[in-house]
Amino acid sequence: MNVEFVNPFLISTANVLSTMAKTEAKFSKPFLKTDRSAKGDVTGIIGMNCSQARGSLAITFTEAAILHIYNQMLGETAKEVNDDVVDCVGEITNMITSGAKAILSEKGYQFELAIPTMVAGNNHSISHKTKGSVICVPFDTIAGSLFVEVCFEE
Amino acid sequence: MNVEFVNPFLISTANVLSTMAKTEAKFSKPFLKTDRSAKGDVTGIIGMNCSQARGSLAITFTEAAILHIYNQMLGETAKEVNDDVVDCVGEITNMITSGAKAILSEKGYQFELAIPTMVAGNNHSISHKTKGSVICVPFDTIAGSLFVEVCFEE
Repeated sequence: MNVEFVNPFLISTANVLSTMAKTEAKFSKPFLKTDRSAKGDVTGIIGMNCSQARGSLAITFTEAAILHIYNQMLGETAKEVNDDVVDCVGEITNMITSGAKAILSEKGYQFELAIPTMVAGNNHSISHKTKGSVICVPFDTIAGSLFVEVCFEE
Repeated sequence: MNVEFVNPFLISTANVLSTMAKTEAKFSKPFLKTDRSAKGDVTGIIGMNCSQARGSLAITFTEAAILHIYNQMLGETAKEVNDDVVDCVGEITNMITSGAKAILSEKGYQFELAIPTMVAGNNHSISHKTKGSVICVPFDTIAGSLFVEVCFEE
């Protein structure tokens, strides 16, 4: 997988969480995902296509992390992953992918975005049906972890 | 949402399960999804784009249904949702969407498919971030239920 595709998502994730949710998200070393080990409680998934590549993005939050982010973004307090929190994950997925799309556009990749799908359920795992590599990037926030997974086939 | 987009997925789902897994899947009345009520244990999700529309498909299986289908497809016995079963869900997602893509192509819609993402975790729910409608179609098999959800924006 072209590593050029990964950085825009890291930049955009940190940017969206900082500007929209006043939450600093520090990423640690990206790794190649070889199993379904990264688990979370709510996930946003979106497909992307351009003439040169097709791919998908999954962003998985622990409950603690997304409740903090939701509360910071909306100024409301949610104590569990309810419909509003799930909708917020869809909105974050849209914003992160749109930000990455803008960066990738400057590099000559004109991606089209599909419709985000959200998954809610304690301790679920995510995997991707691809012959290519899956890059997983862990992010830490003051309230907990999230994981951004990106895969592309060219 | 253009109802022309829904039927190809119903036809393709029944066709793939019948030919690949010797499993009859009968669908009941499609309904507009207004909440996250349809729950399952393993899900395949894929994004789709064409020049006229963008969308996503989610196919959610109960554990009993997917174990039966897996065993029928592979001639192997899995007693729980392991990595091989999750991979099989990705393969089924690819096959159903490819079948639907072929039908839609005849109607003048040249969809490109993103990379399938799979979710495993007991009793998770699926929702979609769209201003359009989400159509959910329940299917019954001899071993249990599955749900096909389709949404498109034009």
